[in-house]
Amino acid sequence: MVRTQRGATQDAVRRHNLAAILGHLHRNGPSSRAQLTRLLGLNRATIGTLVDELASRRLAVEAAEPERGARGRPSKVVGVRSDTFMVIAVEIGVDAITLALVSLGGLVIARDRCLMANDRDRSFERVVASIAERTSALLRRSQGQFTPVAMGVAVPGAVRSRDGFVHFAPNLGWRHAPLAARLREVLAGDAVVQIGNDANLGAMAEHSRGIASGVNDLVYLHAEVGVGGGIITGGRMLEGSSGYGGEVGHMQVNPDGAACHCGGHGCWETEVGEDALVRRAGLRPGGRSPAEQVLRQAREGDQDCLAAVEETARWISAGLINLVNSLNPEMLILGGMFEELLDLARPTITEQLHRGIYDSEHQRVELVTPRFGRDAVLIGAAELALQLILNDPAAVPPSDGQHPAPVPQFPSRPRGVALAGLEVLSAPERS
Amino acid sequence: MVRTQRGATQDAVRRHNLAAILGHLHRNGPSSRAQLTRLLGLNRATIGTLVDELASRRLAVEAAEPERGARGRPSKVVGVRSDTFMVIAVEIGVDAITLALVSLGGLVIARDRCLMANDRDRSFERVVASIAERTSALLRRSQGQFTPVAMGVAVPGAVRSRDGFVHFAPNLGWRHAPLAARLREVLAGDAVVQIGNDANLGAMAEHSRGIASGVNDLVYLHAEVGVGGGIITGGRMLEGSSGYGGEVGHMQVNPDGAACHCGGHGCWETEVGEDALVRRAGLRPGGRSPAEQVLRQAREGDQDCLAAVEETARWISAGLINLVNSLNPEMLILGGMFEELLDLARPTITEQLHRGIYDSEHQRVELVTPRFGRDAVLIGAAELALQLILNDPAAVPPSDGQHPAPVPQFPSRPRGVALAGLEVLSAPERS
Repeated sequence: MVRTQRGATQDAVRRHNLAAILGHLHRNGPSSRAQLTRLLGLNRATIGTLVDELASRRLAVEAAEPERGARGRPSKVVGVRSDTFMVIAVEIGVDAITLALVSLGGLVIARDRCLMANDRDRSFERVVASIAERTSALLRRSQGQFTPVAMGVAVPGAVRSRDGFVHFAPNLGWRHAPLAARLREVLAGDAVVQIGNDANLGAMAEHSRGIASGVNDLVYLHAEVGVGGGIITGGRMLEGSSGYGGEVGHMQVNPDGAACHCGGHGCWETEVGEDALVRRAGLRPGGRSPAEQVLRQAREGDQDCLAAVEETARWISAGLINLVNSLNPEMLILGGMFEELLDLARPTITEQLHRGIYDSEHQRVELVTPRFGRDAVLIGAAELALQLILNDPAAVPPSDGQHPAPVPQFPSRPRGVALAGLEVLSAPERS
Repeated sequence: MVRTQRGATQDAVRRHNLAAILGHLHRNGPSSRAQLTRLLGLNRATIGTLVDELASRRLAVEAAEPERGARGRPSKVVGVRSDTFMVIAVEIGVDAITLALVSLGGLVIARDRCLMANDRDRSFERVVASIAERTSALLRRSQGQFTPVAMGVAVPGAVRSRDGFVHFAPNLGWRHAPLAARLREVLAGDAVVQIGNDANLGAMAEHSRGIASGVNDLVYLHAEVGVGGGIITGGRMLEGSSGYGGEVGHMQVNPDGAACHCGGHGCWETEVGEDALVRRAGLRPGGRSPAEQVLRQAREGDQDCLAAVEETARWISAGLINLVNSLNPEMLILGGMFEELLDLARPTITEQLHRGIYDSEHQRVELVTPRFGRDAVLIGAAELALQLILNDPAAVPPSDGQHPAPVPQFPSRPRGVALAGLEVLSAPERS
């Protein structure tokens, strides 16, 4: 049976409209009431009421500056408040955990990074403890000026975003890890913790404020030893039925190819990952950054390294062809090692794509590199957490107008207090 | 810039709720008011008002039958009206055009089929003329009892659904064909004509009322000479940025493979289409159904044909692995020749998938055959056209309650009359 849509209510309309305004201001910067009126197709009085409500909830602020070039009575300019609420963005990598405090509008308040030297550091409980410890330190540095509302965590693996469960993160050695639940326990009883796959969050960052702003169909790729993929179609993240969507590194591109750690053979990442490049250049994988060495020597004109780059570029194209012919994206974002390979071998990749893409004279796809580079995943983790405010600004309680609203400590306060601002978000659905 | 959502209005809420009720009744059959109240999470009075509005628009009807097993005052049962409105579903194949008149609830009122013997029959203008002629004949047979509201057309090619433009339909020899616009001209000035890719509509049919009912992530495949694909992710059709989504027959699965008509080489359909199967069995492609002959002989135990089936099954798996690792579908629907190959070689396909799918111990995917078989595409075309009523029931004008509402003739009446019932749907967006 197809799931039946629930009915909409008056309250839902107001919330939808608050979210539309706040989302616009967050992504595009300040705007006049007149601009908002035009953009949203609502009347001026309604916009005024909505903006007032956002202001009372300390999410937006109005300044009396006139709109540039406008005549007559100056229209006030509305912008998000970057000095009230914040989220904690966390990127769990293979060698390090990176954290940042980020406010509405994408302002980074503070950053931190801790290295993971060995498998013990990468163990589930150690990672959870490190995140909690570093979060406390970061929050102490921010001296309680901001109210923390949620945490967004990027994981290098297959995750079920609904409940923040990590199915499988091979590079960390994790399997069936209840990451969100465990972080909630360690941080504070009701902490809102959202988990996402790292490449998916990279795609989200480039889609919401990066190179793919306004692009609704795209594939974001990040290559190092393996290849991660984040797919957005029709403006929405493709997560798949259980969170394994975008494991494009394991498309089978070479039926005669080498065995992959995943159990398959001829996987895309066995042909285009760092190790493949290094082997083709006649170097031995392992050691300190041999892939970077190949890329550097190729840029300097070394023939063996250039040949390795060209051969790798052909295999890159094979996977891109599969993605384009299945998904018809408007844009392919090539990050990590792919960024440098595109720079060195763009003619080869372009020509191969032209030959392999279905109806390539008429089906267009743009090959670009990420705007945020290695920061994309962390920015995506912040966006994921900010969605909690952006999707439902009315869940943030209004200030009493006289005193600054109480600023709960996060994560050290008892259950419920830390996330007072967003408790309604975890309210059970009506049965 | 990310597109800003428009604001929602009271009217939009009512329309949303009407659509939620009608869609539920269309897909799942009659329901009591009490059931609707539970399903939609609205109060009983609101449901009553909405049901009354659907009835006044001749879209739903109430019967006094008590709900089975219910106690106390009998709850009325609400169902769609299958005797008022209908759509014309058209499937343009390679050898034939099939048409059907279909009403709400999926009731098929009448069917017709006309063969295309040669390239002249397949030319754009001839196809348009055939559709118009056969539609008139079908409508005469229905004797004006139903009000035709829209036409849905399935095309074997890449289409832009927004304006019904066919980019490329190689098997028909079409390029840049404004199909919806031309059909509107021939039928009646304002006829609502929606166009979709055939495999996409097959997927829509299986998703909305077939084997994949309730499944939000699926890939529908139909193999004959080529392989068509329809992808649904998160409950929505994946069309891609310009309508080329789902051209999975042109994934490159064999870097050493044969040239494909598309200009590429080693495409999936060159390895798994009818011609590949026939060649592997040592037969000559062409003539009368050689692929069916291979399949029949394989079922009878012929070793060469069985070997051809097994080899083809391995290549089928290669493409399925790519799709699963990119999209993480819950279900793969194998139609056309794939249905018989799955029947003959399920162990091989299952074993190959198990080896190639990322984390296959934990990532589940179901291999099934379509419920609607060769009718899936036609049923999908009907669903596409019915969306016009289902998405916005309020666009259908209410009856005056005394006389039956005027039943405009379609397609022979002058501009505007034919689709009086749905004119608002083509109203320009507010600027």
